[in-house]
Amino acid sequence: MPNRKKQDFPLSEIRRYLEPGPVVLVSSRWEDRTNIMTMGWHMMLGFSPALFACYIWGENYSFDLIRRSRECAINLPTSDLVDTVAAIGNCSGADGIDKFEKFGLTAQPAEKIRAPLIAQCHANFECKLVDDRQIDRYGLFIWEVVKAHVAASPKRPKTLHYRGDAEFMVSGPNLSRLNRFKPENL
Amino acid sequence: MPNRKKQDFPLSEIRRYLEPGPVVLVSSRWEDRTNIMTMGWHMMLGFSPALFACYIWGENYSFDLIRRSRECAINLPTSDLVDTVAAIGNCSGADGIDKFEKFGLTAQPAEKIRAPLIAQCHANFECKLVDDRQIDRYGLFIWEVVKAHVAASPKRPKTLHYRGDAEFMVSGPNLSRLNRFKPENL
Repeated sequence: MPNRKKQDFPLSEIRRYLEPGPVVLVSSRWEDRTNIMTMGWHMMLGFSPALFACYIWGENYSFDLIRRSRECAINLPTSDLVDTVAAIGNCSGADGIDKFEKFGLTAQPAEKIRAPLIAQCHANFECKLVDDRQIDRYGLFIWEVVKAHVAASPKRPKTLHYRGDAEFMVSGPNLSRLNRFKPENL
Repeated sequence: MPNRKKQDFPLSEIRRYLEPGPVVLVSSRWEDRTNIMTMGWHMMLGFSPALFACYIWGENYSFDLIRRSRECAINLPTSDLVDTVAAIGNCSGADGIDKFEKFGLTAQPAEKIRAPLIAQCHANFECKLVDDRQIDRYGLFIWEVVKAHVAASPKRPKTLHYRGDAEFMVSGPNLSRLNRFKPENL
């Protein structure tokens, strides 16, 4: 799996990748420990600042790393990584596994956080926690995305969308309806 | 557009339709007013009870109807409804439009809420508000889905996933990786 060359991407436009609802890989670091988890329960919550919310189960090994460091990276895998995504979701960092090493993924330094980025993903979003008050009740983390890196092509990567029951939907054709939108609604 | 015959669907399995991140149509009723809005910022937040969170902009006409009634229905449109979805997102109930009538949609009575269901959608999820404390700060509504109705077929409907810029991604092929999942992770 090649590393993907990425460019800075405007934070106000990250909905292009996150709003369609892909499975993402969440990478984190706390002290000398790093981990990667899969995540499908997330949403955009604002354009500017670029807010993003996600659910993380308290039993996940990543939960503590993310809660303590108050940082994470949201990495967008493409469909060629489906076996890696499934495998990452079916093993735990609690078992002493280094998931970067085990799955042949490259940890790249981020710019604004200490958590590593996954080089093989199509896009990486660096996140800082802005609200921890819904974690105890709902497992809900509210993030500000502070830096976005996106591969220049393809413009519409094939992403994975989890249905449960070990089924992934792969993103399909694009339909543009530009003539039906008011400019202020784009 | 035909009405779709639906069956009761287990609440603990609604992630199958909501987790992949489709655009949904939110229908609401307050006193004698009903409305429909499009929504792409939402997430699953729990299996049992079936919790679901979404963002609603305070300037949307539906915001007041939903906040006051503390109910809504989440309706899942399929890709054949793309023009209707785009049109619903580009007009406002504040202009006195009855969106059911304007777009030839059938309002069906729900079982547990007063908001109408959209007969032409593949699935309808009846929601009651369980937490309003994040509305003022984030526009975030936290719902319990109290009843689910889903068309028996197709099992994997073609859904719409919004990318911004008037572009919809249509759900594509299914990849099953059953042999890579631990039973407890399904």
